[in-house]
Amino acid sequence: MPRFFVDTPPQDEIISITGDDARHIGRAQRMRIGDSLTVCHDKTDYICSIMSISDNEVVLKTLESRKACEPSIELTLFMAMPKSDKFESVIQKSTELGAVKIVPVLTRRCVSRPEKKQFQKKLDRLNKIALEAAKQSGRGIVPQVSDIINLDECAQNIKDFDLSLVCYEKGGISLSECGLCSQSGGINKKIALIIGSEGGFDEDEILLLESFGAKRIWLGERILRCETAPVAAMSIIMHLTGNM
Amino acid sequence: MPRFFVDTPPQDEIISITGDDARHIGRAQRMRIGDSLTVCHDKTDYICSIMSISDNEVVLKTLESRKACEPSIELTLFMAMPKSDKFESVIQKSTELGAVKIVPVLTRRCVSRPEKKQFQKKLDRLNKIALEAAKQSGRGIVPQVSDIINLDECAQNIKDFDLSLVCYEKGGISLSECGLCSQSGGINKKIALIIGSEGGFDEDEILLLESFGAKRIWLGERILRCETAPVAAMSIIMHLTGNM
Repeated sequence: MPRFFVDTPPQDEIISITGDDARHIGRAQRMRIGDSLTVCHDKTDYICSIMSISDNEVVLKTLESRKACEPSIELTLFMAMPKSDKFESVIQKSTELGAVKIVPVLTRRCVSRPEKKQFQKKLDRLNKIALEAAKQSGRGIVPQVSDIINLDECAQNIKDFDLSLVCYEKGGISLSECGLCSQSGGINKKIALIIGSEGGFDEDEILLLESFGAKRIWLGERILRCETAPVAAMSIIMHLTGNM
Repeated sequence: MPRFFVDTPPQDEIISITGDDARHIGRAQRMRIGDSLTVCHDKTDYICSIMSISDNEVVLKTLESRKACEPSIELTLFMAMPKSDKFESVIQKSTELGAVKIVPVLTRRCVSRPEKKQFQKKLDRLNKIALEAAKQSGRGIVPQVSDIINLDECAQNIKDFDLSLVCYEKGGISLSECGLCSQSGGINKKIALIIGSEGGFDEDEILLLESFGAKRIWLGERILRCETAPVAAMSIIMHLTGNM
């Protein structure tokens, strides 16, 4: 069933979809009055029936609501900026795998080094990739792609997380050993996953992140590409926390 | 250190590299006599020093040898044929993650439906993608991309494996429950992982695979793209078997 996200919850069991999505429902999907679709708002799915349809607005009546399938953990991916098409792939895959936020980080060995202002112009497009992936994969929220930050800002940021993990090809502990699953449950809900760019991290960048609480994670002997590493690490984390 | 694969082991501590690789060492890598590189043959890495160099042949002396880092399991990916660029990405990522063989399978819902002969023309190119990924990720073998087969052939094929797993979006057991790690160790060394194309599998295709011993695996609530699912499943399998 087609899936759409809205910014506001239903009012008196009525939801209005406007803009591109409205056109998409009528034109690309060729849906008609009475057809069903799923509208998601803030982790709740509403199964709806189309009451009226035009290029500008589709009005829906909610038939039932249920909790959307979101992971029990809130994983933020801090991704050292790779080349543009790789970053787009990482956004798409991270969304499928359940990340709640994707934060591009400028590290020393990044080949792609966009200025903050220049990067902001791309944000709309990048957030649209997250939106489309969220629709396709059945997420309960649309992960946010944020402004680009530097590594000092990243280090400050991870103080707010229950658990911060940085993947380092030169060695570290296994994801099984990093304390993902606490005995009491729920403690390590907010997880920061930090992944290097094409060139990886310098040792002193790892030391900086460690001084702010990050743990070094090792993903094994084989060298993963920078766009493969977040997919691999997130898959394992989601599995170990019972979310995959 | 640059990494190359050769078909024959060293003879009297001498290895010869010819063809494209020889040109690559001299021209693209600009290596010189005395420089070091790694040559891999059949799961053994040889650290070598360049003795002579020309466009046609590079002659190397082995300085030391060591076991290459191959996973303890032999995972074959049976991948229902996705669109071409996605299959190339799957080959690259599967190689990084440690697959030993990649077998394209024609299933009912495949959108891309190459004829066997037509597909064979692409095999050189696809195997080259595996070779480049094996070099880059530090594999001890180059995974083979095989001819395309149909689902009946796939079902016959999986009889030879210790454990066969088919990912099905409509439900199944978790990768933790499928018997990856046997108590005695080593029993489930040969693993077949079967992944659907863009449209997934029909129920009767799953039943066919099950009748040949495959177990249904469920990768969770979120719908993964067909090129994300093998990366996610392989990462978790490699982790659970102590290979990542």
